[in-house]
Amino acid sequence: MRNIRLTIAYDGSAFHGWQFQPGLPTIQAALNDAASEITQETIIVNGASRTDAGVHALGQVAHFKTHSALEAREFQRALNALLPPAIRVVAAEEVGPDFHARWLSQAKTYRYRIFRGAVLSPFDYRRALHVPWALDESVMAAAAREFEGAHDFTSFAASSGAEEEDGSRDMQRLLYASELIRESVSDEIVYIVHGKSFLRYMVRKIVGTLLEVGKGKLGPQQIPEILEARDRSLSGPTVPPDGLYLVSIEYPDPTDSLAGSAARKRAGLR
Amino acid sequence: MRNIRLTIAYDGSAFHGWQFQPGLPTIQAALNDAASEITQETIIVNGASRTDAGVHALGQVAHFKTHSALEAREFQRALNALLPPAIRVVAAEEVGPDFHARWLSQAKTYRYRIFRGAVLSPFDYRRALHVPWALDESVMAAAAREFEGAHDFTSFAASSGAEEEDGSRDMQRLLYASELIRESVSDEIVYIVHGKSFLRYMVRKIVGTLLEVGKGKLGPQQIPEILEARDRSLSGPTVPPDGLYLVSIEYPDPTDSLAGSAARKRAGLR
Repeated sequence: MRNIRLTIAYDGSAFHGWQFQPGLPTIQAALNDAASEITQETIIVNGASRTDAGVHALGQVAHFKTHSALEAREFQRALNALLPPAIRVVAAEEVGPDFHARWLSQAKTYRYRIFRGAVLSPFDYRRALHVPWALDESVMAAAAREFEGAHDFTSFAASSGAEEEDGSRDMQRLLYASELIRESVSDEIVYIVHGKSFLRYMVRKIVGTLLEVGKGKLGPQQIPEILEARDRSLSGPTVPPDGLYLVSIEYPDPTDSLAGSAARKRAGLR
Repeated sequence: MRNIRLTIAYDGSAFHGWQFQPGLPTIQAALNDAASEITQETIIVNGASRTDAGVHALGQVAHFKTHSALEAREFQRALNALLPPAIRVVAAEEVGPDFHARWLSQAKTYRYRIFRGAVLSPFDYRRALHVPWALDESVMAAAAREFEGAHDFTSFAASSGAEEEDGSRDMQRLLYASELIRESVSDEIVYIVHGKSFLRYMVRKIVGTLLEVGKGKLGPQQIPEILEARDRSLSGPTVPPDGLYLVSIEYPDPTDSLAGSAARKRAGLR
């Protein structure tokens, strides 16, 4: 069996999220169908992140196993020929048998776009949240920093009973960076978060809470208190998926991949 | 009767163009419906440019007459509340009774986006033409300049019998600027044309011809010959609407507008 790793971008607005659901258009279903048609095998494409309905991706990572002799590059072309234009394979490579997009992911980066102007461009519909009213952006930026580090994110998790992204019940998560950036040219603020892993709805609940801070309903100093309380009722609302982008996913040193081993062999290394 | 001038942006991909056509979704129909609902009058919104199906706009200009006492600013809000998100009124102002979006337009600017990378972003689907193969971009840029000035554009017009944008049979058109620009960050080339007025399909036929030049099928020195020949069969194909944007439309000095007169009065001028 060969193992093919894909990097995938998608406009999530027309899909019911990543995860296969019978009878519904999902990113995974479209990829399963296309890969199965190409290989004439029953292919399951495993994604690193089960993005929710309406969430976009610039760099989702997935892998699938196949007996096909097709080169990764040819897989990329054939998949893009069959997939809807809203889903694009931006890179494909053959990797070692142990590569697993989900279990080996080391860190993920998400962005959330909030457009601040009076009229949302038709070209940003479903691609940014529109918040034209007054917000104290500098207080929001200070509050964003309060999420950095290791915390129990129970207060920013999906309501009880919902499955977490990594299937576990441990609500402790580590964020390497959590910041709000002003993009003046496009008149938007962008929340950028880089973390080891995330709970379901966590980014959207953080953004909803930052908006409460921006409106003056919460102070930035209350973020640590809300985290400490482990109480979902204290955080802000879950913002819509429109502005959320899975930007990239990091993996261990690529020398573990087949390409890496081949390169090491060529270089005379073990 | 009051006269309201609108500046409108739209993602044209879901519409059958600007012009009202019974039973089909068009930009004008959506605006007519929204303005009529707001005023409870039968409103016809007159646009400056009858953009074709799939063509986008950043700054289409239109006007309509109404007995309504609603301020222009309130019209903007009410229209945006009723219009589909793919159509946005980005500005509205009250103008003098003689303002006519179409007859008074002095010049228009169009852009045509050609994406050059291997994989078109899902976010640019229907918003740029994808041309990943080899093109001699510098020869194309030279050829683009050949269209500047006053020419008979018969060779770059819609097939005989099709109505021209300004209703006339005169094929002479004046282009102030016609250039091809490299945008390295987004890996695209953009054709930008600024002219007094345009024939139907003219921009898309010019771009189609520039692509023939880029592929080496035509030399830039042949552009003057093709213009001179007044023969549609000599120009390149009409490219799809996906990459075309009506950027802006220019009008005579705004002191002719009602806002201008009011400003002059406030300033103690006639």
